[in-house]
Amino acid sequence: MLTLHNYFRSSTSTRLRAALNLKGLDYDYRAYSLLKKETQKPDFLSKNPAGLVPVLELEDGVMLSQSLAIIEYLDEVHPEPPLLPADPKSRARVRALSYMIACEVHPLNNLRVLNYLASEFDSDDQGKAAWFNHWVHETFQPLESLLAKSPDTGTYCHGDSPSLADCCLYAQMWNNKRFKVDCSGYPTVSRIFSNLDQLEAFRKAAPPVQPDAV
Amino acid sequence: MLTLHNYFRSSTSTRLRAALNLKGLDYDYRAYSLLKKETQKPDFLSKNPAGLVPVLELEDGVMLSQSLAIIEYLDEVHPEPPLLPADPKSRARVRALSYMIACEVHPLNNLRVLNYLASEFDSDDQGKAAWFNHWVHETFQPLESLLAKSPDTGTYCHGDSPSLADCCLYAQMWNNKRFKVDCSGYPTVSRIFSNLDQLEAFRKAAPPVQPDAV
Repeated sequence: MLTLHNYFRSSTSTRLRAALNLKGLDYDYRAYSLLKKETQKPDFLSKNPAGLVPVLELEDGVMLSQSLAIIEYLDEVHPEPPLLPADPKSRARVRALSYMIACEVHPLNNLRVLNYLASEFDSDDQGKAAWFNHWVHETFQPLESLLAKSPDTGTYCHGDSPSLADCCLYAQMWNNKRFKVDCSGYPTVSRIFSNLDQLEAFRKAAPPVQPDAV
Repeated sequence: MLTLHNYFRSSTSTRLRAALNLKGLDYDYRAYSLLKKETQKPDFLSKNPAGLVPVLELEDGVMLSQSLAIIEYLDEVHPEPPLLPADPKSRARVRALSYMIACEVHPLNNLRVLNYLASEFDSDDQGKAAWFNHWVHETFQPLESLLAKSPDTGTYCHGDSPSLADCCLYAQMWNNKRFKVDCSGYPTVSRIFSNLDQLEAFRKAAPPVQPDAV
Protein backbone atom coordinates (compact mmCIF):
# COMPACT_ATOMS: atom_id res chain seq x y z
CA MET A 1 0.00 0.00 0.00
CA LEU A 2 1.20 3.50 -0.85
CA THR A 3 1.33 6.11 1.90
CA LEU A 4 0.56 9.72 1.06
CA HIS A 5 2.09 12.25 3.46
CA ASN A 6 0.21 15.45 2.72
CA TYR A 7 -2.09 18.29 3.81
CA PHE A 8 -5.65 18.85 2.67
CA ARG A 9 -5.20 22.47 1.60
CA SER A 10 -1.80 22.09 -0.08
CA SER A 11 -2.20 22.61 -3.79
CA THR A 12 0.67 20.28 -4.63
CA SER A 13 -1.03 17.60 -2.49
CA THR A 14 -4.31 18.11 -4.36
CA ARG A 15 -2.52 17.60 -7.68
CA LEU A 16 -1.05 14.34 -6.51
CA ARG A 17 -4.30 13.07 -4.97
CA ALA A 18 -6.04 13.66 -8.31
CA ALA A 19 -3.32 11.72 -10.14
CA LEU A 20 -3.46 8.82 -7.67
CA ASN A 21 -7.25 8.70 -8.02
CA LEU A 22 -7.09 8.84 -11.83
CA LYS A 23 -4.70 5.88 -11.74
CA GLY A 24 -7.04 4.04 -9.39
CA LEU A 25 -4.32 3.66 -6.75
CA ASP A 26 -5.26 3.27 -3.10
CA TYR A 27 -3.20 5.04 -0.46
CA ASP A 28 -2.98 5.45 3.24
CA TYR A 29 -3.66 9.13 4.01
CA ARG A 30 -1.38 10.84 6.56
CA ALA A 31 -1.99 14.49 7.37
CA TYR A 32 0.57 17.13 8.40
CA SER A 33 -0.75 20.57 9.25
CA LEU A 34 1.21 23.34 7.56
CA LEU A 35 -0.34 25.86 9.96
CA LYS A 36 1.07 23.89 12.90
CA LYS A 37 4.41 23.53 11.03
CA GLU A 38 4.22 19.75 11.32
CA THR A 39 6.35 19.34 8.19
CA GLN A 40 9.22 21.07 10.01
CA LYS A 41 9.37 18.39 12.72
CA PRO A 42 11.98 15.60 12.71
CA ASP A 43 9.44 12.89 11.87
CA PHE A 44 8.52 14.58 8.59
CA LEU A 45 12.01 15.92 7.82
CA SER A 46 13.30 12.35 7.89
CA LYS A 47 10.95 11.70 4.96
CA ASN A 48 11.75 14.91 3.08
CA PRO A 49 14.52 17.23 4.34
CA ALA A 50 12.94 20.08 2.37
CA GLY A 51 9.99 19.98 4.77
CA LEU A 52 7.48 20.10 1.93
CA VAL A 53 4.38 18.06 1.22
CA PRO A 54 3.48 15.89 -0.57
CA VAL A 55 5.70 12.87 -0.05
CA LEU A 56 4.66 9.53 -1.51
CA GLU A 57 6.03 6.57 0.41
CA LEU A 58 6.31 3.52 -1.80
CA GLU A 59 5.73 -0.05 -0.67
CA ASP A 60 9.51 -0.56 -0.29
CA GLY A 61 9.92 2.51 1.90
CA VAL A 62 11.37 4.79 -0.79
CA MET A 63 10.18 8.36 -0.29
CA LEU A 64 9.34 10.36 -3.40
CA SER A 65 8.99 14.15 -3.20
CA GLN A 66 7.97 16.99 -5.52
CA SER A 67 4.44 16.46 -6.80
CA LEU A 68 5.25 16.63 -10.52
CA ALA A 69 8.16 14.20 -10.19
CA ILE A 70 5.85 11.80 -8.35
CA ILE A 71 3.08 12.11 -10.96
CA GLU A 72 5.59 11.46 -13.80
CA TYR A 73 6.75 8.39 -11.83
CA LEU A 74 3.17 7.14 -11.45
CA ASP A 75 2.60 7.65 -15.16
CA GLU A 76 5.71 5.59 -15.99
CA VAL A 77 4.98 2.74 -13.57
CA HIS A 78 1.17 2.68 -13.98
CA PRO A 79 0.73 3.80 -17.59
CA GLU A 80 -3.08 3.45 -17.73
CA PRO A 81 -4.83 5.80 -18.03
CA PRO A 82 -2.01 8.00 -19.37
CA LEU A 83 -1.60 11.49 -17.89
CA LEU A 84 0.58 12.59 -20.80
CA PRO A 85 -0.25 12.14 -24.49
CA ALA A 86 1.89 9.91 -26.71
CA ASP A 87 3.26 12.45 -29.17
CA PRO A 88 6.36 14.41 -28.01
CA LYS A 89 5.02 17.82 -29.11
CA SER A 90 1.73 17.16 -27.32
CA ARG A 91 3.63 16.03 -24.24
CA ALA A 92 5.60 19.28 -24.38
CA ARG A 93 2.33 21.23 -24.56
CA VAL A 94 0.83 19.44 -21.55
CA ARG A 95 4.03 19.84 -19.54
CA ALA A 96 4.31 23.53 -20.47
CA LEU A 97 0.72 24.17 -19.30
CA SER A 98 1.52 22.28 -16.09
CA TYR A 99 4.71 24.24 -15.44
CA MET A 100 2.95 27.56 -16.07
CA ILE A 101 1.02 26.78 -12.91
CA ALA A 102 3.67 24.80 -11.05
CA CYS A 103 6.61 27.14 -11.77
CA GLU A 104 4.98 30.55 -12.28
CA VAL A 105 1.95 30.72 -9.98
CA HIS A 106 2.10 28.28 -7.10
CA PRO A 107 5.69 28.89 -5.87
CA LEU A 108 4.91 32.57 -5.36
CA ASN A 109 1.66 32.00 -3.56
CA ASN A 110 2.23 29.19 -1.12
CA LEU A 111 1.96 29.59 2.62
CA ARG A 112 5.66 30.00 3.37
CA VAL A 113 5.98 32.89 0.92
CA LEU A 114 2.87 34.62 2.28
CA ASN A 115 4.23 34.16 5.81
CA TYR A 116 7.58 35.64 4.77
CA LEU A 117 5.83 38.67 3.22
CA ALA A 118 4.05 39.20 6.53
CA SER A 119 7.15 38.85 8.70
CA GLU A 120 9.68 40.69 6.52
CA PHE A 121 7.54 43.24 4.68
CA ASP A 122 4.76 43.76 7.25
CA SER A 123 2.28 42.62 4.63
CA ASP A 124 -1.24 42.35 6.09
CA ASP A 125 -4.04 40.08 4.83
CA GLN A 126 -5.00 42.60 2.18
CA GLY A 127 -1.40 42.89 0.98
CA LYS A 128 -1.04 39.12 0.83
CA ALA A 129 -4.29 38.79 -1.13
CA ALA A 130 -3.09 41.46 -3.59
CA TRP A 131 0.19 39.60 -4.05
CA PHE A 132 -1.65 36.29 -4.55
CA ASN A 133 -4.05 37.81 -7.08
CA HIS A 134 -1.27 39.54 -9.00
CA TRP A 135 0.66 36.35 -9.69
CA VAL A 136 -2.43 34.34 -10.59
CA HIS A 137 -3.56 36.91 -13.15
CA GLU A 138 -0.02 37.32 -14.52
CA THR A 139 -0.11 33.67 -15.63
CA PHE A 140 -3.84 32.99 -16.03
CA GLN A 141 -4.15 35.66 -18.75
CA PRO A 142 -1.71 33.87 -21.10
CA LEU A 143 -2.95 30.47 -19.89
CA GLU A 144 -6.53 31.36 -20.89
CA SER A 145 -5.29 32.64 -24.23
CA LEU A 146 -3.25 29.49 -24.93
CA LEU A 147 -6.15 27.21 -23.98
CA ALA A 148 -8.81 29.21 -25.82
CA LYS A 149 -6.86 29.46 -29.08
CA SER A 150 -5.54 25.92 -29.39
CA PRO A 151 -7.41 23.22 -31.31
CA ASP A 152 -5.74 20.75 -28.91
CA THR A 153 -7.88 21.97 -26.02
CA GLY A 154 -10.93 19.79 -25.52
CA THR A 155 -13.14 18.86 -22.60
CA TYR A 156 -9.98 19.24 -20.56
CA CYS A 157 -6.64 21.02 -21.07
CA HIS A 158 -5.54 18.60 -23.77
CA GLY A 159 -8.23 16.70 -25.62
CA ASP A 160 -10.92 14.76 -23.83
CA SER A 161 -8.86 12.87 -21.26
CA PRO A 162 -7.56 14.41 -18.05
CA SER A 163 -3.80 15.03 -17.98
CA LEU A 164 -1.00 16.28 -15.76
CA ALA A 165 -2.03 19.83 -16.70
CA ASP A 166 -5.55 19.22 -15.41
CA CYS A 167 -4.19 18.02 -12.07
CA CYS A 168 -2.30 21.33 -11.77
CA LEU A 169 -5.18 23.49 -12.97
CA TYR A 170 -7.75 21.84 -10.72
CA ALA A 171 -5.57 22.29 -7.63
CA GLN A 172 -4.75 25.92 -8.47
CA MET A 173 -8.43 26.75 -8.97
CA TRP A 174 -9.15 25.59 -5.41
CA ASN A 175 -6.40 27.93 -4.21
CA ASN A 176 -7.90 30.72 -6.31
CA LYS A 177 -11.32 30.18 -4.70
CA ARG A 178 -9.79 30.45 -1.28
CA PHE A 179 -8.19 33.81 -2.09
CA LYS A 180 -11.35 35.00 -3.90
CA VAL A 181 -9.57 35.45 -7.23
CA ASP A 182 -12.03 36.67 -9.86
CA CYS A 183 -11.76 34.07 -12.63
CA SER A 184 -14.68 35.40 -14.70
CA GLY A 185 -12.19 36.62 -17.31
CA TYR A 186 -11.02 33.05 -17.88
CA PRO A 187 -13.99 31.23 -19.47
CA THR A 188 -11.94 28.37 -20.92
CA VAL A 189 -10.11 27.74 -17.66
CA SER A 190 -13.42 27.91 -15.78
CA ARG A 191 -15.11 25.53 -18.20
CA ILE A 192 -12.29 23.00 -17.82
CA PHE A 193 -12.44 23.28 -14.03
CA SER A 194 -16.20 22.59 -14.11
CA ASN A 195 -15.66 19.58 -16.34
CA LEU A 196 -12.94 18.23 -14.04
CA ASP A 197 -15.10 18.82 -10.99
CA GLN A 198 -17.65 16.39 -12.42
CA LEU A 199 -15.10 13.56 -12.33
CA GLU A 200 -14.97 11.47 -9.17
CA ALA A 201 -11.15 11.29 -9.27
CA PHE A 202 -10.96 15.08 -8.98
CA ARG A 203 -13.86 15.60 -6.58
CA LYS A 204 -12.29 13.08 -4.21
CA ALA A 205 -9.01 15.01 -4.39
CA ALA A 206 -10.54 18.38 -3.48
CA PRO A 207 -9.38 20.02 -0.24
CA PRO A 208 -12.77 20.18 1.54
CA VAL A 209 -13.39 16.42 1.47
CA GLN A 210 -10.06 15.33 2.95
CA PRO A 211 -9.93 13.78 6.44
CA ASP A 212 -7.94 16.72 7.88
CA ALA A 213 -10.11 19.46 6.31
CA VAL A 214 -11.21 22.16 8.73
CA MET B 1 17.72 24.54 -37.79
CA LEU B 2 16.30 25.20 -34.31
CA THR B 3 15.87 28.80 -33.18
CA LEU B 4 16.42 29.66 -29.54
CA HIS B 5 14.63 32.80 -28.39
CA ASN B 6 16.30 33.66 -25.11
CA TYR B 7 18.34 36.04 -22.94
CA PHE B 8 21.90 35.51 -21.79
CA ARG B 9 21.24 36.09 -18.09
CA SER B 10 17.96 34.18 -17.83
CA SER B 11 18.49 31.10 -15.72
CA THR B 12 15.82 29.12 -17.57
CA SER B 13 17.61 29.99 -20.83
CA THR B 14 20.93 28.78 -19.41
CA ARG B 15 19.33 25.44 -18.50
CA LEU B 16 18.04 24.97 -22.01
CA ARG B 17 21.31 26.05 -23.68
CA ALA B 18 23.14 23.42 -21.60
CA ALA B 19 20.65 20.74 -22.66
CA LEU B 20 20.88 21.70 -26.35
CA ASN B 21 24.67 21.62 -26.13
CA LEU B 22 24.68 18.24 -24.35
CA LYS B 23 22.51 16.85 -27.16
CA GLY B 24 24.86 18.34 -29.74
CA LEU B 25 22.05 20.35 -31.34
CA ASP B 26 22.86 23.54 -33.25
CA TYR B 27 20.57 26.53 -32.89
CA ASP B 28 20.15 30.02 -34.17
CA TYR B 29 20.53 32.35 -31.17
CA ARG B 30 18.03 35.22 -30.85
CA ALA B 31 18.37 37.58 -27.90
CA TYR B 32 15.57 39.47 -26.09
CA SER B 33 16.61 41.82 -23.32
CA LEU B 34 14.54 41.38 -20.18
CA LEU B 35 15.81 44.73 -18.91
CA LYS B 36 14.41 46.42 -22.02
CA LYS B 37 11.20 44.34 -21.67
CA GLU B 38 11.63 42.98 -25.18
CA THR B 39 9.68 39.83 -24.27
CA GLN B 40 6.60 42.01 -23.64
CA LYS B 41 6.54 43.29 -27.23
CA PRO B 42 4.12 41.88 -29.85
CA ASP B 43 6.89 40.13 -31.80
CA PHE B 44 7.82 37.99 -28.82
CA LEU B 45 4.28 37.63 -27.43
CA SER B 46 3.25 36.05 -30.73
CA LYS B 47 5.77 33.30 -29.91
CA ASN B 48 4.82 32.94 -26.25
CA PRO B 49 1.85 34.89 -24.84
CA ALA B 50 3.32 34.46 -21.35
CA GLY B 51 6.17 36.79 -22.37
CA LEU B 52 8.77 34.47 -20.89
CA VAL B 53 12.04 33.15 -22.30
CA PRO B 54 13.16 30.68 -23.42
CA VAL B 55 11.14 29.67 -26.46
CA LEU B 56 12.48 26.99 -28.77
CA GLU B 57 11.23 27.33 -32.33
CA LEU B 58 11.26 23.99 -34.12
CA GLU B 59 12.03 23.51 -37.80
CA ASP B 60 8.29 23.34 -38.59
CA GLY B 61 7.58 26.63 -36.80
CA VAL B 62 6.09 25.08 -33.63
CA MET B 63 7.00 27.18 -30.58
CA LEU B 64 7.83 25.31 -27.39
CA SER B 65 7.90 27.15 -24.07
CA GLN B 66 8.81 26.37 -20.44
CA SER B 67 12.44 25.25 -20.21
CA LEU B 68 11.79 21.92 -18.47
CA ALA B 69 9.04 20.96 -20.92
CA ILE B 70 11.44 21.74 -23.77
CA ILE B 71 14.27 19.72 -22.24
CA GLU B 72 11.96 16.72 -21.69
CA TYR B 73 10.92 17.06 -25.35
CA LEU B 74 14.55 17.11 -26.49
CA ASP B 75 15.25 14.05 -24.38
CA GLU B 76 12.35 12.19 -26.00
CA VAL B 77 13.16 13.17 -29.59
CA HIS B 78 16.97 13.04 -29.30
CA PRO B 79 17.51 10.32 -26.69
CA GLU B 80 21.32 10.33 -26.78
CA PRO B 81 22.93 11.19 -24.46
CA PRO B 82 20.02 10.74 -22.02
CA LEU B 83 19.30 13.55 -19.56
CA LEU B 84 17.19 11.26 -17.39
CA PRO B 85 18.20 7.81 -16.13
CA ALA B 86 16.32 4.69 -17.27
CA ASP B 87 14.89 3.50 -13.96
CA PRO B 88 11.59 5.19 -12.84
CA LYS B 89 12.75 5.76 -9.25
CA SER B 90 15.99 7.31 -10.48
CA ARG B 91 14.05 9.45 -12.92
CA ALA B 92 11.85 10.61 -10.03
CA ARG B 93 15.00 11.52 -8.06
CA VAL B 94 16.47 13.56 -10.93
CA ARG B 95 13.17 15.30 -11.58
CA ALA B 96 12.68 16.06 -7.87
CA LEU B 97 16.14 17.64 -7.65
CA SER B 98 15.36 19.64 -10.79
CA TYR B 99 12.02 20.86 -9.46
CA MET B 100 13.56 21.84 -6.12
CA ILE B 101 15.40 24.49 -8.12
CA ALA B 102 12.81 25.12 -10.84
CA CYS B 103 9.75 25.28 -8.54
CA GLU B 104 11.16 26.40 -5.18
CA VAL B 105 14.06 28.77 -5.91
CA HIS B 106 13.96 30.27 -9.37
CA PRO B 107 10.29 31.40 -9.52
CA LEU B 108 10.78 33.51 -6.41
CA ASN B 109 13.98 35.10 -7.58
CA ASN B 110 13.51 36.04 -11.18
CA LEU B 111 13.58 39.60 -12.45
CA ARG B 112 9.83 40.19 -12.57
CA VAL B 113 9.42 39.22 -8.92
CA LEU B 114 12.33 41.41 -7.81
CA ASN B 115 10.86 44.28 -9.84
CA TYR B 116 7.48 43.75 -8.19
CA LEU B 117 9.07 43.81 -4.74
CA ALA B 118 10.67 47.13 -5.64
CA SER B 119 7.50 48.70 -7.04
CA GLU B 120 4.95 47.38 -4.52
CA PHE B 121 6.99 47.00 -1.32
CA ASP B 122 9.60 49.71 -1.88
CA SER B 123 12.27 47.04 -1.65
CA ASP B 124 15.73 48.47 -2.36
CA ASP B 125 18.73 46.55 -3.73
CA GLN B 126 19.62 45.33 -0.25
CA GLY B 127 16.07 44.14 0.36
CA LYS B 128 15.99 42.34 -2.98
CA ALA B 129 19.33 40.66 -2.26
CA ALA B 130 18.06 39.52 1.17
CA TRP B 131 14.93 38.07 -0.45
CA PHE B 132 17.02 36.32 -3.11
CA ASN B 133 19.43 34.87 -0.54
CA HIS B 134 16.61 33.70 1.73
CA TRP B 135 14.94 31.56 -0.93
CA VAL B 136 18.20 30.11 -2.20
CA HIS B 137 19.24 29.00 1.29
CA GLU B 138 15.76 27.70 2.10
CA THR B 139 16.16 25.12 -0.69
CA PHE B 140 19.93 24.73 -0.95
CA GLN B 141 20.17 23.45 2.64
CA PRO B 142 17.97 20.40 1.95
CA LEU B 143 19.40 20.11 -1.58
CA GLU B 144 22.94 19.84 -0.18
CA SER B 145 21.75 17.31 2.38
CA LEU B 146 19.97 15.18 -0.24
CA LEU B 147 22.98 15.25 -2.58
CA ALA B 148 25.57 14.64 0.14
CA LYS B 149 23.77 11.68 1.70
CA SER B 150 22.71 9.77 -1.39
CA PRO B 151 24.85 7.01 -2.90
CA ASP B 152 23.26 7.97 -6.24
CA THR B 153 25.18 11.25 -6.31
CA GLY B 154 28.36 10.97 -8.35
CA THR B 155 30.49 13.35 -10.36
CA TYR B 156 27.23 15.11 -11.06
CA CYS B 157 23.79 15.21 -9.39
CA HIS B 158 22.98 11.65 -10.44
CA GLY B 159 25.88 9.35 -11.20
CA ASP B 160 28.61 10.30 -13.61
CA SER B 161 26.59 11.64 -16.53
CA PRO B 162 25.03 15.11 -16.60
CA SER B 163 21.26 15.17 -16.24
CA LEU B 164 18.27 17.51 -16.21
CA ALA B 165 19.09 18.27 -12.57
CA ASP B 166 22.58 19.43 -13.53
CA CYS B 167 21.16 21.81 -16.13
CA CYS B 168 19.03 23.38 -13.38
CA LEU B 169 21.80 23.43 -10.77
CA TYR B 170 24.40 24.93 -13.12
CA ALA B 171 22.04 27.74 -14.17
CA GLN B 172 21.01 28.50 -10.59
CA MET B 173 24.65 28.69 -9.46
CA TRP B 174 25.29 31.43 -12.03
CA ASN B 175 22.33 33.32 -10.58
CA ASN B 176 23.71 32.76 -7.08
CA LYS B 177 27.08 34.20 -8.12
CA ARG B 178 25.41 37.30 -9.44
CA PHE B 179 23.61 37.92 -6.15
CA LYS B 180 26.76 37.03 -4.15
CA VAL B 181 25.10 34.11 -2.35
CA ASP B 182 27.57 32.45 0.00
CA CYS B 183 27.62 28.80 -1.14
CA SER B 184 30.53 27.72 1.09
CA GLY B 185 28.07 25.74 3.23
CA TYR B 186 27.18 23.60 0.22
CA PRO B 187 30.31 21.59 -0.59
CA THR B 188 28.55 18.90 -2.63
CA VAL B 189 26.62 21.42 -4.69
CA SER B 190 29.83 23.41 -5.21
CA ARG B 191 31.79 20.32 -6.24
CA ILE B 192 29.13 19.36 -8.77
CA PHE B 193 29.10 22.90 -10.18
CA SER B 194 32.90 22.80 -10.60
CA ASN B 195 32.66 19.45 -12.35
CA LEU B 196 29.96 20.74 -14.69
CA ASP B 197 31.93 23.89 -15.39
CA GLN B 198 34.70 21.74 -16.84
CA LEU B 199 32.37 20.40 -19.54
CA GLU B 200 32.24 22.34 -22.80
CA ALA B 201 28.44 21.89 -23.09
CA PHE B 202 27.97 23.79 -19.83
CA ARG B 203 30.73 26.37 -20.28
CA LYS B 204 29.24 27.30 -23.65
CA ALA B 205 25.84 27.74 -21.97
CA ALA B 206 27.10 30.12 -19.29
CA PRO B 207 25.67 33.66 -19.29
CA PRO B 208 28.96 35.58 -19.76
CA VAL B 209 29.85 33.92 -23.08
CA GLN B 210 26.53 34.54 -24.86
CA PRO B 211 26.36 37.00 -27.79
CA ASP B 212 24.12 39.42 -25.87
CA ALA B 213 26.15 39.36 -22.63
CA VAL B 214 26.95 42.79 -21.24
